[in-house]
Amino acid sequence: MVTMLELKWEPKKGVWAEQEETFQKLRNNFFGEWREKKLFLNIEEALYLINFQNAVCMDKNGKAVGFNELASRFAAKGPRFFIQYNAFRDWRDRGLILKRFDRELKGEKKAKSKKKYPAKELKTQKIKADAYWYPKSLFSVIDNEAVGRNLFNEHWLGQLGIYKQERGTLLKLNFLETVFLAKHFGLRVIDSETGRAITDRKILSQVTKEREYTKQLYEVYEEWRLKGYVVKTGFKFGSHFRIYFPGASPVKSDKWIHSRHVLHVFPKQQKLLISEWARVVRVAHSVKKTFLLSIPKLKKSEYVDYPADFLAYRRKKAKEGWVRETPKDKPRYLLVAVSEDEHIGGVELASLLKKAESMGLELLLSISDRETSITYYVLKKIVLKDSGKSKNEYYEIEWMKP
Amino acid sequence: MVTMLELKWEPKKGVWAEQEETFQKLRNNFFGEWREKKLFLNIEEALYLINFQNAVCMDKNGKAVGFNELASRFAAKGPRFFIQYNAFRDWRDRGLILKRFDRELKGEKKAKSKKKYPAKELKTQKIKADAYWYPKSLFSVIDNEAVGRNLFNEHWLGQLGIYKQERGTLLKLNFLETVFLAKHFGLRVIDSETGRAITDRKILSQVTKEREYTKQLYEVYEEWRLKGYVVKTGFKFGSHFRIYFPGASPVKSDKWIHSRHVLHVFPKQQKLLISEWARVVRVAHSVKKTFLLSIPKLKKSEYVDYPADFLAYRRKKAKEGWVRETPKDKPRYLLVAVSEDEHIGGVELASLLKKAESMGLELLLSISDRETSITYYVLKKIVLKDSGKSKNEYYEIEWMKP
Repeated sequence: MVTMLELKWEPKKGVWAEQEETFQKLRNNFFGEWREKKLFLNIEEALYLINFQNAVCMDKNGKAVGFNELASRFAAKGPRFFIQYNAFRDWRDRGLILKRFDRELKGEKKAKSKKKYPAKELKTQKIKADAYWYPKSLFSVIDNEAVGRNLFNEHWLGQLGIYKQERGTLLKLNFLETVFLAKHFGLRVIDSETGRAITDRKILSQVTKEREYTKQLYEVYEEWRLKGYVVKTGFKFGSHFRIYFPGASPVKSDKWIHSRHVLHVFPKQQKLLISEWARVVRVAHSVKKTFLLSIPKLKKSEYVDYPADFLAYRRKKAKEGWVRETPKDKPRYLLVAVSEDEHIGGVELASLLKKAESMGLELLLSISDRETSITYYVLKKIVLKDSGKSKNEYYEIEWMKP
Repeated sequence: MVTMLELKWEPKKGVWAEQEETFQKLRNNFFGEWREKKLFLNIEEALYLINFQNAVCMDKNGKAVGFNELASRFAAKGPRFFIQYNAFRDWRDRGLILKRFDRELKGEKKAKSKKKYPAKELKTQKIKADAYWYPKSLFSVIDNEAVGRNLFNEHWLGQLGIYKQERGTLLKLNFLETVFLAKHFGLRVIDSETGRAITDRKILSQVTKEREYTKQLYEVYEEWRLKGYVVKTGFKFGSHFRIYFPGASPVKSDKWIHSRHVLHVFPKQQKLLISEWARVVRVAHSVKKTFLLSIPKLKKSEYVDYPADFLAYRRKKAKEGWVRETPKDKPRYLLVAVSEDEHIGGVELASLLKKAESMGLELLLSISDRETSITYYVLKKIVLKDSGKSKNEYYEIEWMKP
């Protein structure tokens, strides 16, 4: 026989269970907090129990209260209350536990082993040819075939002739490659409009006027290139870059090599709708690439206190098979509940990631869409070898089904 | 024996062919323009012939000139010269013809038959329940199950309980649904923060403060809803909406119905990087949905003269099989060459589409990525029944391989 869960509510006290059978059952499922011989529930816990566990919540007069009455008098003024509730609902519905995040976990920091990406220092060379820069097109061209072929075959810098066709003799350099070669290979660049030489810094500032965040894009491009990666456009995969590990070559041996990673830059100053942010990740996943996000490393004073919502537990292997983890275990994730129609900025995301890292947790984004379905993304820090002085930090983002 | 194509160049005259064998061959392939007993070539034609047809271009002194010399003295100051060249190169490389677009085609307007989308006027009803509005979450909730179930089952308005699970009794309404029901179904909405009723207009202006372009999103939502379409979030497909044709129901019969169209809104005021714009289309195509773009209908004075680049021809069926079309045929497309790193605005795209339509052509976007690969998108106007007074126009966007 199923016993109905009985909850009580008073506006000034909140929601609690005092009937023994009820609170035993709730404590066994890690709901609520024991205080003054009562089990007090958070609003999301109370609403979840009412909606999905047949709990009944009564006011002082013994009248059952509904979702809206409870929510509007309890929680309406809190930030994103309904989005938090929806995240809680979804996680609990999967038989898993999560608890409101209301304190930093101290002394629980544990150095997590981070995935390491290799590096192989790039060997630069001195180029003996000119490139002509076409500023309105953001491209330059080297029409010396020998030089072009060498740069392309040795470093996969630029595009020689037609992509994957081995026809044509021009080496076409996009603005990132042009700046990089001018700075590190001593390439002389002639501005086609003036006929005079132009510096890498001048090119970068020209492009920045046309295209926002060019400098941030270039910094990331340069860092990975100097560590031996091949960094090409990720246009076909909806990201800024696709990358190949050190040693990759554009020359066909028995088959074309395929990139397996895309890399996207999220600048400090940028604000994106969550739906836009998720769209970038989604394209990469739809083509089965590992998605890497570049997040700015901030100064201490720049981090903000962006609120995290829950500590989330998952499953672990026990003698009897897989069991759910409980608050007696170390949590897995710092969960942040957002909706597709709100914004997130580079600074906020960097701050959240820092907070999670300081507790030895991974960051879990729970995104409610306009239909209250949830999509989960886990952000895992990676280490690019010898990038201690980097202005950026890098994360793999994985789609997750709890 | 292959004859080498001979071209001549003088800075003030341009590039031309005067040797008979050369110009016969070029005229047969629809290069150049006949003038003063010479065949004058556009810069993109000359450079293409030099790069891919073994043409040699000599200056007055009989010295061969290369890509950069010719380009920088001929075309460098023109807008997006290299991007235009690259678009030209790709189309010609496929054995197809295109010509510089330098005049509007007059008197060639031909009413193209446009795809028609049906409509079935929405039957509204009066709702006898309150919804509570949670402004910071941009959601409202109806906790009257009977009312909620009716709205959900009859109109697929809101989300009853959990998506695709048929559990739960709350009807959750996103901000678009909340406003729509308040305006057209007389739903009374209570602001959960104040306890007082709030109007649809107030909700819309609240949300607009949090989320850019909310009004444009709502206008499109409302238009399609009133024509009987079911309009749900397109979050999982990277677009604003997914749509179901009139008559669709959320109630499972033998299997779930799947949407086959997504709909994305490109507001007048918005400027997007081409790479961002293409990303939206790309997600939809990767999940095999038809992509619909909403473009603002502008006032006559708002249209701008955004330059189109080429008239493009394709193939036609002849007695001997498929043959390429030539300038003796009517062109198929108004081709605009852009690059992944430039911007396009709602006004510019609307203006281009208008220009193409006025000539009875489809608009073809040729997007050069940073590696000079080209992606093509065709924009085809559709007609949503009885939408004469609409503030928007709608286009199907198709990925195209010439």
